[in-house]
Amino acid sequence: MDFDSFLTSLGTSFIIFVVLMCLFAWLSSKPGNTVVYYPNRILKGLDPWEGGSRTRNPFTWIKEAMSSSEQDVINMSGLDTAVYFVFMSTVLGIFALSGIILLPALLPVAATDDSIQAAGKNTTSIGTFNDLDKLSMGNITAKSSRLWAFLVATYWVSFVTYFLLWRGYKHVSELRADALMSPEVRPQQFAVLVRDLPDLPKGQSRKEQVDSYFKAIYPDTFYRSMVVTNNKEANKIYEELEGYKKKLARAEAVYAESKSAGKPEGTRPTIKTGFLGLLGKRVDAIEYYNEKIKEIIPKLEAEQKITLKEKQLGAALVFFTSRVAAASAAQSLHAQLVDTWTVSDAPESRELIWNNLNIKFFQRQIRQYVVYVIVALTIMFYMIPIGLISALTTLDNLKKILPFLKPVINITALKTVLEAYLPQIALIVFLALLPKLLLFLSKTEGIPAVSHAVRAASGKYFYFTVLNVFIGVTVGGTLFKTFKSIEKDPNSIVDVLANSLPGNATFFLTYVALQ
Amino acid sequence: MDFDSFLTSLGTSFIIFVVLMCLFAWLSSKPGNTVVYYPNRILKGLDPWEGGSRTRNPFTWIKEAMSSSEQDVINMSGLDTAVYFVFMSTVLGIFALSGIILLPALLPVAATDDSIQAAGKNTTSIGTFNDLDKLSMGNITAKSSRLWAFLVATYWVSFVTYFLLWRGYKHVSELRADALMSPEVRPQQFAVLVRDLPDLPKGQSRKEQVDSYFKAIYPDTFYRSMVVTNNKEANKIYEELEGYKKKLARAEAVYAESKSAGKPEGTRPTIKTGFLGLLGKRVDAIEYYNEKIKEIIPKLEAEQKITLKEKQLGAALVFFTSRVAAASAAQSLHAQLVDTWTVSDAPESRELIWNNLNIKFFQRQIRQYVVYVIVALTIMFYMIPIGLISALTTLDNLKKILPFLKPVINITALKTVLEAYLPQIALIVFLALLPKLLLFLSKTEGIPAVSHAVRAASGKYFYFTVLNVFIGVTVGGTLFKTFKSIEKDPNSIVDVLANSLPGNATFFLTYVALQ
Repeated sequence: MDFDSFLTSLGTSFIIFVVLMCLFAWLSSKPGNTVVYYPNRILKGLDPWEGGSRTRNPFTWIKEAMSSSEQDVINMSGLDTAVYFVFMSTVLGIFALSGIILLPALLPVAATDDSIQAAGKNTTSIGTFNDLDKLSMGNITAKSSRLWAFLVATYWVSFVTYFLLWRGYKHVSELRADALMSPEVRPQQFAVLVRDLPDLPKGQSRKEQVDSYFKAIYPDTFYRSMVVTNNKEANKIYEELEGYKKKLARAEAVYAESKSAGKPEGTRPTIKTGFLGLLGKRVDAIEYYNEKIKEIIPKLEAEQKITLKEKQLGAALVFFTSRVAAASAAQSLHAQLVDTWTVSDAPESRELIWNNLNIKFFQRQIRQYVVYVIVALTIMFYMIPIGLISALTTLDNLKKILPFLKPVINITALKTVLEAYLPQIALIVFLALLPKLLLFLSKTEGIPAVSHAVRAASGKYFYFTVLNVFIGVTVGGTLFKTFKSIEKDPNSIVDVLANSLPGNATFFLTYVALQ
Repeated sequence: MDFDSFLTSLGTSFIIFVVLMCLFAWLSSKPGNTVVYYPNRILKGLDPWEGGSRTRNPFTWIKEAMSSSEQDVINMSGLDTAVYFVFMSTVLGIFALSGIILLPALLPVAATDDSIQAAGKNTTSIGTFNDLDKLSMGNITAKSSRLWAFLVATYWVSFVTYFLLWRGYKHVSELRADALMSPEVRPQQFAVLVRDLPDLPKGQSRKEQVDSYFKAIYPDTFYRSMVVTNNKEANKIYEELEGYKKKLARAEAVYAESKSAGKPEGTRPTIKTGFLGLLGKRVDAIEYYNEKIKEIIPKLEAEQKITLKEKQLGAALVFFTSRVAAASAAQSLHAQLVDTWTVSDAPESRELIWNNLNIKFFQRQIRQYVVYVIVALTIMFYMIPIGLISALTTLDNLKKILPFLKPVINITALKTVLEAYLPQIALIVFLALLPKLLLFLSKTEGIPAVSHAVRAASGKYFYFTVLNVFIGVTVGGTLFKTFKSIEKDPNSIVDVLANSLPGNATFFLTYVALQ
């Protein structure tokens, strides 16, 4: 790719952006589309058209976004959005502060040197940005004192990064503290999650066990407890019952409808009892459903009794009367040994991964290590299966394995495209599935809350990114090739740097695009 | 050293032991020595001779020690002794359980093989336990299936160790829980140590700052606070004042004494005001001391005011009305950022390292890393300075550097002893000073309590032991030499193992003796 095609590609993207922007402006100005474009304003009870269509074009939208304060953002979209904005503005700040100082300083330093031209021949290979190369470090003569400028530049970037990250961290910490101290209380702030309850003493129920334990430790602030119960069976029966009740109501409605239509006695609706109502004996629907309901109710009651008695699991939510007591309890040890009465922050109830709550401490530890090993193998050796699959799925191999594809593949235009993308398909599929795999693995660890599992998956993804994309592909690939060729020819370093760029760039852009 | 001298050495030690034991029995039976031999019983208000001299000979002492229950030990000597006993009995249990199974099994397996004899010549070098070698793994023929017995043995030792350590851990944990829950409360159980207090807001004292902060978080359980104050100056003046008061009392007593002896007006004692009362003007003692006291009292009061106002440091002890509240507070975060309001368990007041309390969080972190680096260098490269010193302090060098020692060194008997021990003196001195160095380094880290610093020093010592004695000297030395000689002669492994033993044994025994 030369510089012209790069600019062409950039221009194309910009035109697509402008077209989509105009489309958005036009669509969002249609009153019928408000539920699509302003759902949040409608949910909050605000007028989506406040200020008329004059305030609802892309430019005022941008202006509004720029001028709204952090408090507005928190009020409108919650703390998470505000934190995300802090993150975005920190990253932008790093780019801007680095760029403002470094671009005017380093570009002239690089451009006024002439290592590439002085080499006599065109050392940059075909397929690299020839003109851009003159602006890069590659244009500096070897051992020139100009390289000090680039060294100082790395320190400047590091300093800016550390400073802005530190400021961002402090700011987010304050936002979080404000949210935790806000008068708008949330139920999970009064609760802690207790896991690894020890074996039940004889003649005590789980609830009594938990209540007596926490009442003894927190006599003033303990409020009540809720034992986690596996009500899958009871729930299934309950849903069956509700289903029949709905069907009965419908059948009665149909019967009532039929009465009014001429015949005063009406026609009682009938159904077939077999598969999907298509087979089996035809019976009176209302009688049949009533019978079924009568049958199920005692079954449900029995199941509920059994559930409360036998299916209470070794985990509970404990509620306190004050937020401070709950926060303090969540951070304290509650038993001599670490494998019983494990206490942690209670997540929101919709976030609980109920199936994980009953996993015992040591099993969680083992699961964690197993998952870590699997993740490490995935991170380090992911290229092996992908390479194998890529090698197998070349066009020639495909023709052999799936001969019926031949006529399609032989179309020249399609062949060109396929040859370009086929080797990468395995990689693209892998990178698309990776976050899902990591989330699944994190959940398997026995983590009790969805957001915690997401955090754990992000951590694993971070290691994947750092190890593979930055260290493995970019640094590793470049340096390794460089050292190998410097051994042969000490002047070839610029060559190698230039050569390794497109491959890495392709990989990296593919990767970034898939985020 | 051959087997006979080993037995002789063992016998000599046993005879010394018996003599000392008899001496102990004789001395401890003298009634006048009770304060030396039974101080604890006297302090507890018990009769040191309860049961007469019949119960106070070494054998009943041993019997009593064996028959006393753990609760007796705790009542008599406290929890620490009981924990130490658990530790001792666990170690003994590991030795006993391993020995009972392994000695009868492995000794015959090794003794009935004949690798050493079969080698034809005496492969074990002079200076090793020739006869004992026949009982060791070295006597097994290479690649013999008998080696499996030794492999299984290592697993048995590991299993026994893990099991007994786990049992001991659980037991100590229970002892500790009992002590913490005992009705005999201690002041530190109601307190937490707060460090890294943030900068004072204007017009507030430290005490108000701490009080208002903790009263807000623990309105029901907060009792009071005590700010750590640097009263070094005030204390010095106070001690000076007390000194003069004592001297005044003495002078007045001397004056009163002189009155009664014939002269009713008495002789007023005089002193010289200069150096040690030997030089300077002679003045009336009572007047002089009264004057001094009058001078010092306002100085002390002024200094006390300044101390309370300006020398209150950024640390405090906070007291609660309940043990649970204090324990819970000590485990909880109390500020948004980790570098302010750092809360931890309060140690006993006599254990506090007062000078460390005011060290700020980030300084503590930096100190910690610096200390870790110093410790790592000490552990890994301690042999370099010791080797250099040993090389310099040979007899010949000593004669050159300190020629006046010549007549002493030339005595043959002394020369033999010196030649044997001189090279090790640097090592012995180093090993004797090492625990003190490590404790000093641990205190420098900024740890707030003496027992915590001792624990930290023990940890560092543990790494020294593991890395140097076991891995470095024994395994490293043996294996390294082995590999080097196997390269030359694959059959020499037994030779090398035998050769490396005495050197390591000497080092190891020196080391153990110095514990």
